[in-house]
Amino acid sequence: MISKNEIKFVRSLHQKKFRDEYSLFIIEGEKMLNEAKTSGFEIVSVYYKDDIGDEEMERISALSSPSPVLAVLKQKKANSLPIPGKGTLSLALDGVRDPGNFGTIIRIADWFGIDNIYASTDSVELYNPKVIQASMGSVFRKDVHYVNLEWLVNKIKGSMPIYGTLLNGNSIYETKLTSSGLIVMGNESNGISPEIEKSVDKRILIPPYPIESKGSESLNVATATAIVCSEFRRASASQLRTK
Amino acid sequence: MISKNEIKFVRSLHQKKFRDEYSLFIIEGEKMLNEAKTSGFEIVSVYYKDDIGDEEMERISALSSPSPVLAVLKQKKANSLPIPGKGTLSLALDGVRDPGNFGTIIRIADWFGIDNIYASTDSVELYNPKVIQASMGSVFRKDVHYVNLEWLVNKIKGSMPIYGTLLNGNSIYETKLTSSGLIVMGNESNGISPEIEKSVDKRILIPPYPIESKGSESLNVATATAIVCSEFRRASASQLRTK
Repeated sequence: MISKNEIKFVRSLHQKKFRDEYSLFIIEGEKMLNEAKTSGFEIVSVYYKDDIGDEEMERISALSSPSPVLAVLKQKKANSLPIPGKGTLSLALDGVRDPGNFGTIIRIADWFGIDNIYASTDSVELYNPKVIQASMGSVFRKDVHYVNLEWLVNKIKGSMPIYGTLLNGNSIYETKLTSSGLIVMGNESNGISPEIEKSVDKRILIPPYPIESKGSESLNVATATAIVCSEFRRASASQLRTK
Repeated sequence: MISKNEIKFVRSLHQKKFRDEYSLFIIEGEKMLNEAKTSGFEIVSVYYKDDIGDEEMERISALSSPSPVLAVLKQKKANSLPIPGKGTLSLALDGVRDPGNFGTIIRIADWFGIDNIYASTDSVELYNPKVIQASMGSVFRKDVHYVNLEWLVNKIKGSMPIYGTLLNGNSIYETKLTSSGLIVMGNESNGISPEIEKSVDKRILIPPYPIESKGSESLNVATATAIVCSEFRRASASQLRTK
């Protein structure tokens, strides 16, 4: 059973305003719940479709086809901000707005063992249900730090290379990729903002094939992030082999 | 202006049943419409929000935030089926069900100049509005051939390597990738089906980092496709350089 007020409350968490106010968020699905249990996140309440009814589940769910289970979790307050240091590979998201892309990027960062994820303050909110679902549980393993990216980039400039994917960049296949660095990925429509771009030391590009082709104009930002992270880890793996 | 019957008709194209019946589909957005105009697809009707009204646009749109323009296009009847030949790199999608993934994969194939895209008959339908939108116009440049994949794989077996991403595969970074081949990507939950898997000659894996890590359990199929296609094109580019 679930009361009307409880339905209303859980539904309110579909909106950022109420997520912020209560410092709560929702997750959906058995797999997510299992991961949540060992994640260190506090589980506030759990609703099973079998207990509360199909119609009620549809009302509290943010999915078009509701899962058998939905849980309300407490948001984690960010730890003190880690500054990227020597030997770390970090990702900076400069205005990534699409929640599916953002969640997918967290999942990619998790797979490739990216040390830190920074997001500009105009990026989509981490606790958006679509971000949470697209991350497939990676949100439980990776912290995302919302920062003034311009400040961060200026702070670390000179201490490690700052990479950015730009249309006038050099082929990533022919670029020496270091094991330390910050990789900046830009907004879906506008790419990297000018204030950040001026601090980019290494401009990289994923070349289309054939190189002179006029195929699709761009790759999706999550797709590009995947390829870039893979290239960095490929370089690290090959350095390990030659040691 | 748009009549009630016309609204009802365009809305019906949100459903596969009616798309099949009328052999039509919808596209949304200025960019898509511009690409459609030079694509060879027949444009049946175009609706501008400014002409028909906001509410009417919301009703005919399949997007949560409607674009300023929506068009109805005629589906293209598939040309005769191309069989992958020497020197071609093709992609086979074995039961990719998520329309966002499917559309993103078409966009990736377009970027990387993949010659042919084959989809098993249980894959999502090409003209699903979410596939169309995720492809970002690549659907106008790349044909997708729905086939009995088991038949196709048996037909080409021996004439070129068949690659498949499998959990027990070898690191793609350490695999010699040929310029001809068929790359099989599997279903979101179940991977490559057993009937297809038995024909895979080269089992490849995108290694997590560090290799022994227990991060996210998997990569999204579109993410994995991007990395695999990039690795193949990287190999081709490096062969060209050493010639």
